[in-house]
Amino acid sequence: PLQGKHDERSQVFADLSRDEYLQVQQYMLKQKDLDISTLQTTKPSQNFLFLIDLSLPKKADVLGYLDGKSSKPVREATAVVFHGTKGHIKEYVVGPLPNPVYHRDVTMEKYKKELPINARILPLIEYVLLFSFVEKEVFSKLVKLKKESFDIGQDNNLKAFYQMPPGVKSGDRKTWISFFRDLSGMYIHPVGFEVLVNHESVNTYDWRVERLLYNGQYFDTVEELKQKYDSGSVKKIVFKESRNYGSLKPQRKPLQLSPQQFYAEGKRFSVKNNHILYLDWSFAFGLSSLTGMRVFDVRFKGERIAYELSVQEAMSVYGSVTAGMILTKFLDSSMGIGRFAHELTRGVDCPYDATYIDTYRYIDMEAPTRYRNSICVFEHNMGQPLRRHFADFFHNSYGGMVNSALVFRTITAIGNYDYIWDFIFYQSGSVEAKVHASGYISSSYLVNGSLQFGHQVAENVLGNIHTHFINFKVDLDVLGVKNVFQTKDMEFVNMSLPWMPEHYAMIPQLVEKQLQTEKVCYFLSSCTPRYLHIASNQTNRWGHQRSYRLQVVSFAGEHLPESQPEERAMSWARYKVAITKHKDTEQTSSSLYSQNDIWSPAVDFSSFIEDNESIEDEDLVAWVTTGFLHIPHAEDIPNTVTVGNGGGVILRPHNYFDEDPSIQSADSVYISPG
Amino acid sequence: PLQGKHDERSQVFADLSRDEYLQVQQYMLKQKDLDISTLQTTKPSQNFLFLIDLSLPKKADVLGYLDGKSSKPVREATAVVFHGTKGHIKEYVVGPLPNPVYHRDVTMEKYKKELPINARILPLIEYVLLFSFVEKEVFSKLVKLKKESFDIGQDNNLKAFYQMPPGVKSGDRKTWISFFRDLSGMYIHPVGFEVLVNHESVNTYDWRVERLLYNGQYFDTVEELKQKYDSGSVKKIVFKESRNYGSLKPQRKPLQLSPQQFYAEGKRFSVKNNHILYLDWSFAFGLSSLTGMRVFDVRFKGERIAYELSVQEAMSVYGSVTAGMILTKFLDSSMGIGRFAHELTRGVDCPYDATYIDTYRYIDMEAPTRYRNSICVFEHNMGQPLRRHFADFFHNSYGGMVNSALVFRTITAIGNYDYIWDFIFYQSGSVEAKVHASGYISSSYLVNGSLQFGHQVAENVLGNIHTHFINFKVDLDVLGVKNVFQTKDMEFVNMSLPWMPEHYAMIPQLVEKQLQTEKVCYFLSSCTPRYLHIASNQTNRWGHQRSYRLQVVSFAGEHLPESQPEERAMSWARYKVAITKHKDTEQTSSSLYSQNDIWSPAVDFSSFIEDNESIEDEDLVAWVTTGFLHIPHAEDIPNTVTVGNGGGVILRPHNYFDEDPSIQSADSVYISPG
Ligand SMILES: [Ca+2]
Ligand SMILES: [Ca+2]
Ligand SMILES: [Ca+2]
Ligand SMILES: [Ca+2]
Ligand SMILES: [Cu+2]
Ligand SMILES: [Cu+2]
Repeated sequence: PLQGKHDERSQVFADLSRDEYLQVQQYMLKQKDLDISTLQTTKPSQNFLFLIDLSLPKKADVLGYLDGKSSKPVREATAVVFHGTKGHIKEYVVGPLPNPVYHRDVTMEKYKKELPINARILPLIEYVLLFSFVEKEVFSKLVKLKKESFDIGQDNNLKAFYQMPPGVKSGDRKTWISFFRDLSGMYIHPVGFEVLVNHESVNTYDWRVERLLYNGQYFDTVEELKQKYDSGSVKKIVFKESRNYGSLKPQRKPLQLSPQQFYAEGKRFSVKNNHILYLDWSFAFGLSSLTGMRVFDVRFKGERIAYELSVQEAMSVYGSVTAGMILTKFLDSSMGIGRFAHELTRGVDCPYDATYIDTYRYIDMEAPTRYRNSICVFEHNMGQPLRRHFADFFHNSYGGMVNSALVFRTITAIGNYDYIWDFIFYQSGSVEAKVHASGYISSSYLVNGSLQFGHQVAENVLGNIHTHFINFKVDLDVLGVKNVFQTKDMEFVNMSLPWMPEHYAMIPQLVEKQLQTEKVCYFLSSCTPRYLHIASNQTNRWGHQRSYRLQVVSFAGEHLPESQPEERAMSWARYKVAITKHKDTEQTSSSLYSQNDIWSPAVDFSSFIEDNESIEDEDLVAWVTTGFLHIPHAEDIPNTVTVGNGGGVILRPHNYFDEDPSIQSADSVYISPG
Repeated sequence: PLQGKHDERSQVFADLSRDEYLQVQQYMLKQKDLDISTLQTTKPSQNFLFLIDLSLPKKADVLGYLDGKSSKPVREATAVVFHGTKGHIKEYVVGPLPNPVYHRDVTMEKYKKELPINARILPLIEYVLLFSFVEKEVFSKLVKLKKESFDIGQDNNLKAFYQMPPGVKSGDRKTWISFFRDLSGMYIHPVGFEVLVNHESVNTYDWRVERLLYNGQYFDTVEELKQKYDSGSVKKIVFKESRNYGSLKPQRKPLQLSPQQFYAEGKRFSVKNNHILYLDWSFAFGLSSLTGMRVFDVRFKGERIAYELSVQEAMSVYGSVTAGMILTKFLDSSMGIGRFAHELTRGVDCPYDATYIDTYRYIDMEAPTRYRNSICVFEHNMGQPLRRHFADFFHNSYGGMVNSALVFRTITAIGNYDYIWDFIFYQSGSVEAKVHASGYISSSYLVNGSLQFGHQVAENVLGNIHTHFINFKVDLDVLGVKNVFQTKDMEFVNMSLPWMPEHYAMIPQLVEKQLQTEKVCYFLSSCTPRYLHIASNQTNRWGHQRSYRLQVVSFAGEHLPESQPEERAMSWARYKVAITKHKDTEQTSSSLYSQNDIWSPAVDFSSFIEDNESIEDEDLVAWVTTGFLHIPHAEDIPNTVTVGNGGGVILRPHNYFDEDPSIQSADSVYISPG
């Protein structure tokens, strides 16, 4: 029996409906001067409506509306057009929904610069064109080599993997395409052949092969490779059948079911539209095609704790001796994190009895598409008591409570990797954002020198060393938007003992600081104090500032040196936690355009703090980076397991309440003898 | 349908049975020359049989037996006698069980020195004697003060908490006794009164009050306090009724059950004697009264991975401005960690359907005692897939597997704190050792200067800042006992791109090292490489050394400076991970005698590595330290919650196998369209 009530106002955060996507699409098509196509066959030289997504209203407008002080903000969409005819990309805001009558070019306003056409991510059509380009310009000319080395005849059944970013400087669109066998989990079946294609021009007839890599040897042209191969001056790859070690098919019949969870007395949470109620919690949710899952207006016992908690970016930097992967730096939000939130498998991805929610998206497609069961929500027994005490001195008694919490989850399979994203709502007033990695590793063909960059994980296959860095946006609003940022830690001090003053001892003291401006060393991971707090100036019953603490769990590797031209596109990863003054114009730490114009990124997070604004009594946003260093090993075959491969942040009340709120939970248990 | 078989040989690790305890007790009583008493009323000046526990056989003997190469090692017990008549403590090995005929004083052999009587932990009798001493020498003389300040009349119903260690140097036995109200969770109801008692002598008539602390003011004698109190020159505490805020009684009626777990097709694990089978796993277990829970001969698919995984110590260092807690440094294994493993509550401490196991102990009691349901074992859905991949490019398919794992758990309520200890066995071949804290914080009465050492958490109550450091012993045996210790990490190196050599970029490389001797900087927490491995010289299919990786999860505070005389008793906490060459004589990192003779500890872990032995091709033991800094806050009232308050270590196969062993699991799921 839920006690709270759903709030229709949550829909201010709702993703666009199928109908709203269609309305925006049709509106954009009607703008004849834009000359837009929505067909997936639209050529790079034409104008393609790549993305339609919700345009979030300004925070102040939303807060006014949520708090009953102003009317509902206008509902708008963002439309991204790749203007192949003009050599640039435009972002338009289209509104009002559901029946748009206006559009406005917001590119300059949002990014303070034009977006060159080559900053665009590859639309599906470009992958198709590149593949046929390589088929025609490369494979068709290497009949003998491809037969002997890869066992392919007329039909090229190799699979291509496109390394990113495409080049070494702004404007480059030179992609190393690596080839893999057509087996389960192609990512771990490299054949040892890579081709560098220059596709800078929107006209495919300008494209050209710039280099080839075969079995660790580089060639300038297909002809050079062919000639040297035929003349025997090349170290050859000789095709060998290989086991389908990437297969995920069960090798044993099910023996006996694993333990199952069930709701003996029904669900204690409720989902209505994009609003969720769970015991003392309520929140709105959405799924951005680009950044992925997010929740808004997170309240506990009716009090707003966070305005927004969202996934921002998943980044990986690879090491390799072979061409494609040397430069590989993936910025998944450009590819689209939410875009790849596919159907969840009952009983594996989420418990069988979870509530599954459909989502709709419009990204690189001709019509909005429904993704069935792409979000799941469930209450779970976390396997431990939330709190307990057994008293055996003086009075025997026991008090405790099971840790039963609500999990809000999506899983995004972006090419090889699957990220499992969880927001967990605990009865003690904590919220946790967690990410775990699974899926296939990225691999390369083993050549001389490879082992400096990873371990061999299969026949001729190197699992390349790489980092995983994940960025979350945590817009806590602790009793309103005016907050301060505080740190707490310990320090040993030499103290004289009060009852024997001649005796000194080192005693731990509490050290508290309030930080004044955005640009403070303390944010850097190397000197992070142990406790980080977003605090209100209001105090709890005991006179302490009410706060939420950010506890980061991370096993991150080393961040790319700032000397590198690609670093500014991932400058959020410099900081374990960075605190900025909230701005509607600083909505995300990364962008759709960061992957392919990584050298001149549309969003450089470090600029958010470069102006070094005051963070005292301001609306603060914490940007939290977590991750792990991944040195692949044999057990990453076929898939990386989630155990130990993750990170996250726990938002914990710290003097926010006057006592632990879980003491009020109806799940509390107390036992006393007699 | 379990496929493995139980192994009777596991009983070489079994705790003593009720009968074995009795046999040892009777044997010891028969040794007239030892003049031992087993009564709980035994005075400090007499000889008290404090502890009987299993004496673990030598590892080589056990391995010979387990591997079928030698006969069963003799079963022996350790008996600890507090020889009040002689001023020392003795450890005897008594054997052979079940019918002992010999005993041997092993004190010098084990500790290389005599154990002075004041190194003993307080037996229950001493608490009783101290309490009546204080009643007689202090409270009975302060009739007016105790009535006005604490509302107590004839019957002193204050509760006492004994701060440790008792003094500032070896030989000291001067305990600050703090007083608390007789309310639920007395630990958070300090009254502001502490008494320093010198009880160095085993004769209670030598005991004396050395100092008193009342409301932040110190007094040399009871008379001084009484006189100044009566004359009004003391800042008084005026009794005020206070809410029973430590109560754990539910404040609301149960509404609706939280989700429950059940074994739809029965349990997939089996417990027989002290041996557990779970899918591919098997292990023996025990519960030491002192160090707590431990498992031995841990095997996966029949292959031994660890000889021993055990809890060693739980330590806390407190900060305070008030006398008792200024010096407080708890070493729980002296108090006895396993000793306080009490009955677990079904449905809260462990799932309702878990298997519960009884244990027997003999520590500070007159007869062996059964602790019903003090260990639980259950398989749990960990709330996430163990691995999964959804393929949407090229071939649509899904493969995955739920993360269902076995949890082996005890919970030890040592005074105020409850530690939840978990060993978790995953289907991917990983084992995790985890600890979480719950229960009551230790608190002190709020006086001037208190707030430098914590936050106020209730009326006149300070939650004192403190550290939690936990030590685990991890004796991995990777394909036998001869192993090496390796580290792996990343490092950016400036590389010229092979296809455009004039262009340089910083690329992450794999950096591997093998460490030669025990005393290497890398073990220190400040310079720990990201990957730590215990490796065999045998290689997997891909030519890499088969290894297990130690992944430590810790939020530890600062370790006590080495300058402090108490530090050597906790020197294990200097290292996040320390590697030593295995020795039967270096069985534990701490000892029963470390708490009360903290300045001259019976075991100084740092000496294990001081001899700087080779750790190449030796039997290696990893000593892992985890923990967290605890700055108590209002939400620690009434109990600390487990969310975020823990740490642990994951032991993960890393090139140990040729591929992920979970691919063989019958829980694997595969879905393909059509
Ligand atoms: Ca700023
Ligand atoms: Ca905020
Ligand atoms: Ca040694
Ligand atoms: Ca070993
Ligand atoms: Cu990875
Ligand atoms: Cu604590």
